[in-house]
Amino acid sequence: MNLKPIGVVYSEYKKRGDAPRQWEGGISEIEVFKEYEKGLKDVETFSHLHVLYWLHESEGYSLSVNTPWDTKPHGLFAARSPHRPNPIGYSVVKLLGREGNKLRVEGLDAIDGTKVLDIKPYVPRIDSKPEAGSGWLEGKFRC
Amino acid sequence: MNLKPIGVVYSEYKKRGDAPRQWEGGISEIEVFKEYEKGLKDVETFSHLHVLYWLHESEGYSLSVNTPWDTKPHGLFAARSPHRPNPIGYSVVKLLGREGNKLRVEGLDAIDGTKVLDIKPYVPRIDSKPEAGSGWLEGKFRC
Repeated sequence: MNLKPIGVVYSEYKKRGDAPRQWEGGISEIEVFKEYEKGLKDVETFSHLHVLYWLHESEGYSLSVNTPWDTKPHGLFAARSPHRPNPIGYSVVKLLGREGNKLRVEGLDAIDGTKVLDIKPYVPRIDSKPEAGSGWLEGKFRC
Repeated sequence: MNLKPIGVVYSEYKKRGDAPRQWEGGISEIEVFKEYEKGLKDVETFSHLHVLYWLHESEGYSLSVNTPWDTKPHGLFAARSPHRPNPIGYSVVKLLGREGNKLRVEGLDAIDGTKVLDIKPYVPRIDSKPEAGSGWLEGKFRC
């Protein structure tokens, strides 16, 4: 189960801790490597994309995590901490534009230089669950 | 960028091609390995989860893919084909119940024996985009 990057993130956020929260609407660029560019055909017909990326600054993990949202710890798989057994980051991004192998996106929670693993089209019919609950996060977002 | 499984899928769907489409509501079980069970604390407070898994039967890929939804080929990153440079599967699942290290879920598009890489809570505030367009898939779903 080896991974290879298909692209890289360019962002004004340079350091761990700098990355915008997903709902803060930071704008980034994804450069898909030239050898994969053909795979982007028609990606611009979608308004939103799933992006998977490698959290290269993640170092180890704890199964019980403290978060900014609660005074109590929660299980790692009930939290979005970047420190995970498999440090794969996930964001839904809004696609603002495409020029060749470059995608301009909003909402990517990744720092400059992050390697991109996959891009999939966001299909609201299967991916959007507005009825979903927010679990222990309910009422705790202060943003 | 090496991955290690954190769990495994048990499903009545045994073979490639058998897996239900994500919207068909097949029910599966995810067994999270005992060593990671503590990380599931509070996961049951969420109604939906993101599941990432390894598409072990994926063999190679093409950057231009034919799909059941169109007569024209589309770019791989504008399609949800399992044959990808990094064969990581993604489903949003409905969490039906948890017993210890076992999760009963609906909507997991993975065959029996699939290795699970990560589980993250689905947070509608950041993950649900009901306003998203369906790109070239618009009006093509027949289900």
